[in-house]
Amino acid sequence: MKQLLAVDWGTSSLRGALLDGQGRVLKECSFARGILSVAPGDFATVFEACFGHWMRAAGTFCLISGMAGSQQGWQEAPYCACPAGFDKVASQLAWVKAGRIAIVPGLSCEREGIPDVMRGEETQVFGALQLLGIQDGLLVLPGTHSKWVTVRGGKIENFSTFMTGEFYALLRQHSLLARSLPDTDGEVDWVAFDEGVALALRGTGLLQTAFSVRTLSLFGRMAAARLPSYLSGLVIGEEIRAQPLPTGAQVVVIGAQALTERYERALAQRGASVQRVGADASWRGLWALAQTIHTGWDT
Amino acid sequence: MKQLLAVDWGTSSLRGALLDGQGRVLKECSFARGILSVAPGDFATVFEACFGHWMRAAGTFCLISGMAGSQQGWQEAPYCACPAGFDKVASQLAWVKAGRIAIVPGLSCEREGIPDVMRGEETQVFGALQLLGIQDGLLVLPGTHSKWVTVRGGKIENFSTFMTGEFYALLRQHSLLARSLPDTDGEVDWVAFDEGVALALRGTGLLQTAFSVRTLSLFGRMAAARLPSYLSGLVIGEEIRAQPLPTGAQVVVIGAQALTERYERALAQRGASVQRVGADASWRGLWALAQTIHTGWDT
Repeated sequence: MKQLLAVDWGTSSLRGALLDGQGRVLKECSFARGILSVAPGDFATVFEACFGHWMRAAGTFCLISGMAGSQQGWQEAPYCACPAGFDKVASQLAWVKAGRIAIVPGLSCEREGIPDVMRGEETQVFGALQLLGIQDGLLVLPGTHSKWVTVRGGKIENFSTFMTGEFYALLRQHSLLARSLPDTDGEVDWVAFDEGVALALRGTGLLQTAFSVRTLSLFGRMAAARLPSYLSGLVIGEEIRAQPLPTGAQVVVIGAQALTERYERALAQRGASVQRVGADASWRGLWALAQTIHTGWDT
Repeated sequence: MKQLLAVDWGTSSLRGALLDGQGRVLKECSFARGILSVAPGDFATVFEACFGHWMRAAGTFCLISGMAGSQQGWQEAPYCACPAGFDKVASQLAWVKAGRIAIVPGLSCEREGIPDVMRGEETQVFGALQLLGIQDGLLVLPGTHSKWVTVRGGKIENFSTFMTGEFYALLRQHSLLARSLPDTDGEVDWVAFDEGVALALRGTGLLQTAFSVRTLSLFGRMAAARLPSYLSGLVIGEEIRAQPLPTGAQVVVIGAQALTERYERALAQRGASVQRVGADASWRGLWALAQTIHTGWDT
């Protein structure tokens, strides 16, 4: 039986899963070998070290999504312009090794003369569509650079990037606010988080609302241990404020629970209802793409 | 004739000016001795080293504004609540040395349960009011933490802080965008700046618009040398987008030319007209405050 080695090779991590012909995950592993840690020319060596033993089984096909297809990656897979569905993306794979290893291209789109890009998230979106059995929807992939994606008729029509996770990290680590923010080991104070979201939704922008972390601390209005959750609410709330969500909007949130939980809670303040999909959407998306290729794939 | 030693003691710098009874600046100097560089208990020593020779003239009175009045400063001058005019601020000076050296309190205000604070800017606002001969207006003090100040009947009614300069520095130095941004020695590309402002004004927020620095660079749509000015336009434009400016609004912009020029240009895109006041507004404000004290001041 043929197998798929599904790989998500991002900026800071490298994850892989071995799937059978029905798309079931047989095993998974991850390595701290994101593309930033790999010297140009070393990608094949790193790949072999991590996945060589899985590739040696006859008929194993490997499909890679993420930053591995960027200019700084293993091999460039030029952006595929939106609107783009499964078939278009599958037809523009960058083959690293004919018939054995291919990289999924990222997507590009444009709004008012400004380009936008993603790499890896397109595969998660395709996976989520399959998992939910839908062809249309508004999907969000929270993260360092969150993506809001509009899908119609199974095609990604358009998307936009929000640097939410990165802004949070900058404020948390490098800003004047950093010294007011103790380490909380990822524990969320939901009341403080909700207060942050609420202020963001009625506020005039993060440039202003972020300063409230300082003043609430200065006047002892919020305990230090609650401030990181409050700031998280401010930043995520700012992202959600920017979305033109109609009343009763439905949003699919894709990612790890620690983040999707926050987005579900923040979106509730806008009256939106949420379906959550786990980060395994990548595996499902890679498996679905592999199915469209038909290079000896045994379905 | 009595003299005033006017001192602006901020977080990162210490500036002083000797003024005569008419408020004319006789001499000025500045030191890299912001309060962050002074150990607790060392303020008197640093002050003596920098200004001791100026204080020895009989009848020299010293008034200090800025972070020297904070909890981490020389002596705390508790915040004075808005609305606050000259007289209220002058009545709440923190005396370091009776009749000789006093610190001007900062101001606090509150909007929707969220406090806001300033230290030093209140003095610049009072100075600008004097220099322009006005009692009412909307004033902005651009900087690391920009302040938008509403004045009515000579009193500061309310204000709000925007962390504009700090966000710019964070993105410029610590974000993923940093590697796309070459050093430009403060040279402004005004066309790129205007484009940044324009996108900010029609955009949905800095979390999104900031990513355009990356994509314009990635697709070669904007030369690297122009990107820092573009980012500056994005960030300042974001601050200005948040202001509820009526058509034909008049705004007083206080500060050094390098910044006030950018704000005038950005505000023009909102149809606002600008009066600029230099950073010497501090000296004028301290002099005006000294006049209200009447502790043997010879007018």
